[in-house]
Amino acid sequence: MEKDLLAAIAAISPPDREAMARAEKRQAALAKPPGSLGKLEELSVRLAGITGKVINHIGKTRIIVLAADNGVVEEGVSSAPQSVTLAQTVNLTRALTGASSMAAYFGDGLVVADVGVNAVVDCPAVLDRKIAMGTGNIAREPAMTRDQAVRAVEIGMELARDAKNDGVDIIGVGEMGIGNTTTSAAVLAALLSLSVEDVTGRGGGLTDDGFARKKAVIASALALHRPDPGDPLDVLGKVGGFDIAAMCGVFLGAAECSLPVVIDGFISIVAALCAARLCENVKAYLIPSHASFEKGYAAAAEELGLQPYLLLDMRLGEGSGCPLAFRVVQAACAVMNGMATFDGAGINDDYLTEIRENEDICFGRS
Amino acid sequence: MEKDLLAAIAAISPPDREAMARAEKRQAALAKPPGSLGKLEELSVRLAGITGKVINHIGKTRIIVLAADNGVVEEGVSSAPQSVTLAQTVNLTRALTGASSMAAYFGDGLVVADVGVNAVVDCPAVLDRKIAMGTGNIAREPAMTRDQAVRAVEIGMELARDAKNDGVDIIGVGEMGIGNTTTSAAVLAALLSLSVEDVTGRGGGLTDDGFARKKAVIASALALHRPDPGDPLDVLGKVGGFDIAAMCGVFLGAAECSLPVVIDGFISIVAALCAARLCENVKAYLIPSHASFEKGYAAAAEELGLQPYLLLDMRLGEGSGCPLAFRVVQAACAVMNGMATFDGAGINDDYLTEIRENEDICFGRS
Repeated sequence: MEKDLLAAIAAISPPDREAMARAEKRQAALAKPPGSLGKLEELSVRLAGITGKVINHIGKTRIIVLAADNGVVEEGVSSAPQSVTLAQTVNLTRALTGASSMAAYFGDGLVVADVGVNAVVDCPAVLDRKIAMGTGNIAREPAMTRDQAVRAVEIGMELARDAKNDGVDIIGVGEMGIGNTTTSAAVLAALLSLSVEDVTGRGGGLTDDGFARKKAVIASALALHRPDPGDPLDVLGKVGGFDIAAMCGVFLGAAECSLPVVIDGFISIVAALCAARLCENVKAYLIPSHASFEKGYAAAAEELGLQPYLLLDMRLGEGSGCPLAFRVVQAACAVMNGMATFDGAGINDDYLTEIRENEDICFGRS
Repeated sequence: MEKDLLAAIAAISPPDREAMARAEKRQAALAKPPGSLGKLEELSVRLAGITGKVINHIGKTRIIVLAADNGVVEEGVSSAPQSVTLAQTVNLTRALTGASSMAAYFGDGLVVADVGVNAVVDCPAVLDRKIAMGTGNIAREPAMTRDQAVRAVEIGMELARDAKNDGVDIIGVGEMGIGNTTTSAAVLAALLSLSVEDVTGRGGGLTDDGFARKKAVIASALALHRPDPGDPLDVLGKVGGFDIAAMCGVFLGAAECSLPVVIDGFISIVAALCAARLCENVKAYLIPSHASFEKGYAAAAEELGLQPYLLLDMRLGEGSGCPLAFRVVQAACAVMNGMATFDGAGINDDYLTEIRENEDICFGRS
């Protein structure tokens, strides 16, 4: 129910400023020129705000991938057929896709949930959270009902709570859904009152004709439904997708559970923006990964005040930016946990022994 | 001897174009929109050129850190005292510094070699390759003799060969030496005929006065010694440092051994540029890591045609960009080795079994 959802969202805590102050103090004491580890320093302080602890260990990681189809593909806005959603949803669970092959290599967990694939997903490894067989075609009708939007957000929050219960230390958010750069662009244009031109890219690789059609479809969908920029659930329901709405829920749920949560690419950051619009406090829990090549990413990142750590010209989705972003977060922890302070940086074996015996230090994987 | 060194350098092979073509073909067959993994695709092709193999495994990693002092610090060009070189050289072997705490966390090897620390390094974990007790003060005299420059480069090449013999799959190059952003800026200005203003930054954190002094010292050293831009050994000997020269040797040695080699920050990329000037073929073996915050990095990167993968505003040195760059390279391999091809991306358990049994696939660490 929407009332319960809004109550849960309203209860999300701001970051722990006192822990952040302690983290800043420790960073300043570490034996290096002040600021010389740049964003790794900043990130370690943000983590303290999220967890309430200065010393953090990112051991168990999980990418949550939301899969759903979008009715708007019948307008010819995508370079790939809708059947790819189902194929890649299953391939994700088998480490055969871009994101999942990286996750398997690095030992990251990966959970795939079907929130609206337009097919029977006959694969036990895919969590069944199906809301409907794809959304409505936003060129002609709303993507979903408001109740469905609420349900999708709730499903995402539940998946984040499950991660917390499973002992996960950090969540990444990905998606699989042909047509979802179209719905994401529509949501972003609505939320930021930007022109379609400013937020729309070629997705998987549209031709000039397809690209023009995609922009026209987004413009007409926005004109038809007139989503309310002040009401993210209205925007998600009218021109979004089940994947984006559920991803928005994962961001909210991670914040509720005091877990850092990594944004992947364009669709992911649009979902993060929806979450931040539903609850300003969520911003503190968001960790960027790579700068997506897809147009619109930069506008959303700027709105959220985030600068990506990786410049890889990627535009695959699936959560493919998360494995490397997890490593960046681990590097930030390694520095915070492992470096000597100025007081202790002298060459002194007594000090060394003391450091090695200190449980704060994390050598090797936890 | 210089003759032997030049012969070894002349024997460095160009990348394997045939393997690169095969790698490009496989990338095109992987089930994703073409180019959607951006620089990870490009990197996997570059790796094929380096190793001659399409399927590469980056298991054993090693950061080689060259430590040396610079006589020019007596001009007041550094924010830290010279004694920090010795302290951090030892702390590097104990996982207490920025780079080494990250390396320890990720399981990367780290070798520290003293090529010219101005102190007796009483620490068995530091390799003794000392050439002299620091360089001469370039404001008044050449940093070293030409023979010493040759010796330093040879030492670096030997360290790369040792890595190859130890089964290392990728090398990273770092340094520790107070004053080495001054010598690096001097080398870069000489090699690229750039103004001192264009290549000089504040290093560890100079005051305005110190910064002005640093630029004046570099300008007068260049005017005094007039290093020959066409002769990298002349430049290294007159205004460089033992660390930069030995790092140059590591880049050359990695190329000789067909090993990919990661550039860290400003000093590292200046050394890489020296190596590329000594042998154009070396360029193919260079892997960028992060965009150093230190001025001058960008000019060197552009000259080498490299775009960094990580944007972390770091300026610590020590090889601190290498651990995360190693992960980027591993991610590129994970994709190349693990993803299904379009032919195989259908949902078919026979195919899956075949893929799993294929030794090309690398799940988990090797």
